[in-house]
Amino acid sequence: MALKEFNDLADFSAAQVQAMLALAARLQQRPEPQALAGKVLALLFLSPSLRTLSSFQAAMMRLGGGSFVISPDMSIHGLETRSGIVMDGVAAEHLREAIPVISSYGDALGIRAFANRVRLEDDLADTEYRAMRELVRIPLINMESAIQHPCQSLADWKTMDELGVPKNGGKFVLSWAWHPKALPLAVPSSTLHMAAMRGMDVTVVRPDGFALPQPIMDKARKAAETSGGTVRETSDRKEALEGAHVIYAKEWSSTRHYGDRVADARLREDLQDWRVDDPWFATARPDCRFMHCLPVRRGVAVTDRVLDGPRSVVIHEAQNRMWGQMAVLYQMLGPGA
Amino acid sequence: MALKEFNDLADFSAAQVQAMLALAARLQQRPEPQALAGKVLALLFLSPSLRTLSSFQAAMMRLGGGSFVISPDMSIHGLETRSGIVMDGVAAEHLREAIPVISSYGDALGIRAFANRVRLEDDLADTEYRAMRELVRIPLINMESAIQHPCQSLADWKTMDELGVPKNGGKFVLSWAWHPKALPLAVPSSTLHMAAMRGMDVTVVRPDGFALPQPIMDKARKAAETSGGTVRETSDRKEALEGAHVIYAKEWSSTRHYGDRVADARLREDLQDWRVDDPWFATARPDCRFMHCLPVRRGVAVTDRVLDGPRSVVIHEAQNRMWGQMAVLYQMLGPGA
Amino acid sequence: MALKEFNDLADFSAAQVQAMLALAARLQQRPEPQALAGKVLALLFLSPSLRTLSSFQAAMMRLGGGSFVISPDMSIHGLETRSGIVMDGVAAEHLREAIPVISSYGDALGIRAFANRVRLEDDLADTEYRAMRELVRIPLINMESAIQHPCQSLADWKTMDELGVPKNGGKFVLSWAWHPKALPLAVPSSTLHMAAMRGMDVTVVRPDGFALPQPIMDKARKAAETSGGTVRETSDRKEALEGAHVIYAKEWSSTRHYGDRVADARLREDLQDWRVDDPWFATARPDCRFMHCLPVRRGVAVTDRVLDGPRSVVIHEAQNRMWGQMAVLYQMLGPGA
Repeated sequence: MALKEFNDLADFSAAQVQAMLALAARLQQRPEPQALAGKVLALLFLSPSLRTLSSFQAAMMRLGGGSFVISPDMSIHGLETRSGIVMDGVAAEHLREAIPVISSYGDALGIRAFANRVRLEDDLADTEYRAMRELVRIPLINMESAIQHPCQSLADWKTMDELGVPKNGGKFVLSWAWHPKALPLAVPSSTLHMAAMRGMDVTVVRPDGFALPQPIMDKARKAAETSGGTVRETSDRKEALEGAHVIYAKEWSSTRHYGDRVADARLREDLQDWRVDDPWFATARPDCRFMHCLPVRRGVAVTDRVLDGPRSVVIHEAQNRMWGQMAVLYQMLGPGA
Repeated sequence: MALKEFNDLADFSAAQVQAMLALAARLQQRPEPQALAGKVLALLFLSPSLRTLSSFQAAMMRLGGGSFVISPDMSIHGLETRSGIVMDGVAAEHLREAIPVISSYGDALGIRAFANRVRLEDDLADTEYRAMRELVRIPLINMESAIQHPCQSLADWKTMDELGVPKNGGKFVLSWAWHPKALPLAVPSSTLHMAAMRGMDVTVVRPDGFALPQPIMDKARKAAETSGGTVRETSDRKEALEGAHVIYAKEWSSTRHYGDRVADARLREDLQDWRVDDPWFATARPDCRFMHCLPVRRGVAVTDRVLDGPRSVVIHEAQNRMWGQMAVLYQMLGPGA
Repeated sequence: MALKEFNDLADFSAAQVQAMLALAARLQQRPEPQALAGKVLALLFLSPSLRTLSSFQAAMMRLGGGSFVISPDMSIHGLETRSGIVMDGVAAEHLREAIPVISSYGDALGIRAFANRVRLEDDLADTEYRAMRELVRIPLINMESAIQHPCQSLADWKTMDELGVPKNGGKFVLSWAWHPKALPLAVPSSTLHMAAMRGMDVTVVRPDGFALPQPIMDKARKAAETSGGTVRETSDRKEALEGAHVIYAKEWSSTRHYGDRVADARLREDLQDWRVDDPWFATARPDCRFMHCLPVRRGVAVTDRVLDGPRSVVIHEAQNRMWGQMAVLYQMLGPGA
């Protein structure tokens, strides 16, 4: 049956994810350049993008279809997002029209909209994305919302499979990394869930004040129960890194001071040693991999020598964005869908 | 015979428009994803766009072809449009080169260039668009010029056909609507002509000072004579709306003060009640539709309750942009063209 | 054997260039709209573009493939290019990730990066482009670097062939032209080499202080030795233009004051008569052509009457960009490649 929505790996069983990855591998090995002939993917970017922008366009082209890209600056003076407003200001068009219109030209729609980072409960509930979803009547792909980034997780799962990183018994360390700004929770949340769902022993290591929200942890623990994995959180980096198969670095906001950028900035001021460097791998497994979703600030979140060294698989992850998304699009729009 | 230009519905007979719409319906029902294989549509946007930008790209993809988009900010420091000028300022390229170059890569070209709104006679004569047209040697589509928007009119005609809005005897009210700025005459002019050509009884209702220019009215009256329709203009809104099958709202400039933005602004200051709202439909037909070409400012030109209510067919109109344009492109570049 | 890199005409024999042009002519006459089905060209523009942007997209579409475009403003706050830097400033992504990532989605990559115009030796060595090239593992096309513009040269060669401009014995005058700014050396260098390689008698005419760098002249002389052409340089415009088959105008930086924009500006101040005009053709051959790579500033580098007159073949040159590039792409990615 055709896939209608790709929003959260948690909406699928591990077997369904494996089937998607098998399809991705098949399309990678045996191209089907006519599979989506005449099909159109509409791409709405309310936040900037490089990998997602490129990889979705490339994915459609490799399957014989096409895509078009819309962002607010293409409309006249931008797109209004607030509801119930009298639009006598700058914006000449509202998302309530823009989304149905764009959707009406596509066979599927992708939406990217980063977290507002004002109220944690809104971002955890993915309020903005869910409001947009109500306006869509065609298959929909979450290209990163306030709390989800399922395409990244699919790519990361595929990457670990290809590298032979064990599922049950594999030790996955998701580490907070330094960054000058308070970034969203979408990638850490999705990554945690993905690793738990893959059956791994997951440790989230982060400084005090940056604990992942309870609902995120609970959801991941539930996934781990099913998969045979485990989930725990600590601020003890030394202990966390021991025996790791994977160190996955990600920058994120203080959850203690969520939405308060001044307090967040003060808290992260002294955390610049949360920069992944060679010594982090001293007690990890010899073949421990370094993962990151990109973009990454060199010399800030991670040193050049790690990023340029043999442990780093960040380009491999990025490339798998395309193959994973091809599988998603094929399940949505391909033959038999 | 292949279509060479799509600039003005008035260049076609009603039967020719009907044939185009029949082709659009056929392509909508029976996709032809190879019809334009290897064909290229060049798209030049000198003014911003969302629907036109998306729907032309999607149209080409659904027919197996492709398109590329050029706007002035893609060239080095923009495109010069004035003729006979010494280009020692900012712009490094002139439209006189840009248009032939872009055309040379395409099998057809679309141009969008909004009205300058300086001199009414220039905009009525479509001076700027006509100057560009002289530079083009391939089939050309007007994607909205100073006074034409034929793709919108084609989509609107199709929408009314699909909704069963009567031709002869159908009452079409084109109403001025409030907006903080002085917008172009392209849509009201094209819409008036389309409805007249479709054989409808057309009433243009607008405040004093916003009468449509005489040449536009005369042209529409001539079309009505052929089609069996009628055309009239009034400022009495109450009387105009009685028995309407369609209320089509559009914002436009004061024609009394054309090009004088201060006087225009003063004139529209007190006209904020020209905001389409439920009471406007009180004496209309029970099944009266609300139409608008979009983008529309919510709470300004029309209330949320009309736009979100069952009378509104604005998304239907927008979607028909794509199907109509596919027919145009097919007649220009498709098999047998 | 498949083409792996298109960077410099000097990497090919004249016979190989002729074969490419024969392929271009074949694709122009007998379209192959399925040749690159499912193939993807990644396009990275670190500098602005109109012709290159359009013609590469159109080229891929005509062969049944597709392309996507990335520029720094699409990433979050731009792309960092400096190496070894701590990225705690504005840019959130480094080219060292961006290039491999983009490449991983494509079957071939095109890169445009204009000269920095700081140190002449860096630009002559194409330092920045070569550093990027190290990051690429797929076929690579130079879409204009500090010192190369091979796609332009291929198009110009094709244009002269089609116009019957003689190879041996053909007199090619590459003339400096006035411009308010200090432009790169890529086009004059590539053009000089192309004409020498084509076997023509090439004269570079330029004001004092604008001599082309010795390594560029030496390389062209070597090509001329093989091809039976000649290469010389002069500041005597009157003498240079006598008997010319082609006057090819190009604006470029002072090489005496390379990187010193103040001194360059002072030097060019009095050179505004280096504006190509009808009298320049007085002693040239009657059928002498005017060539320019575009964009060109009208009334600055060349007068309107030359540009709009019968000698000008600038649009022909621009169109040949597409056909030439189709041959390059076909040799890289097409059947048998």
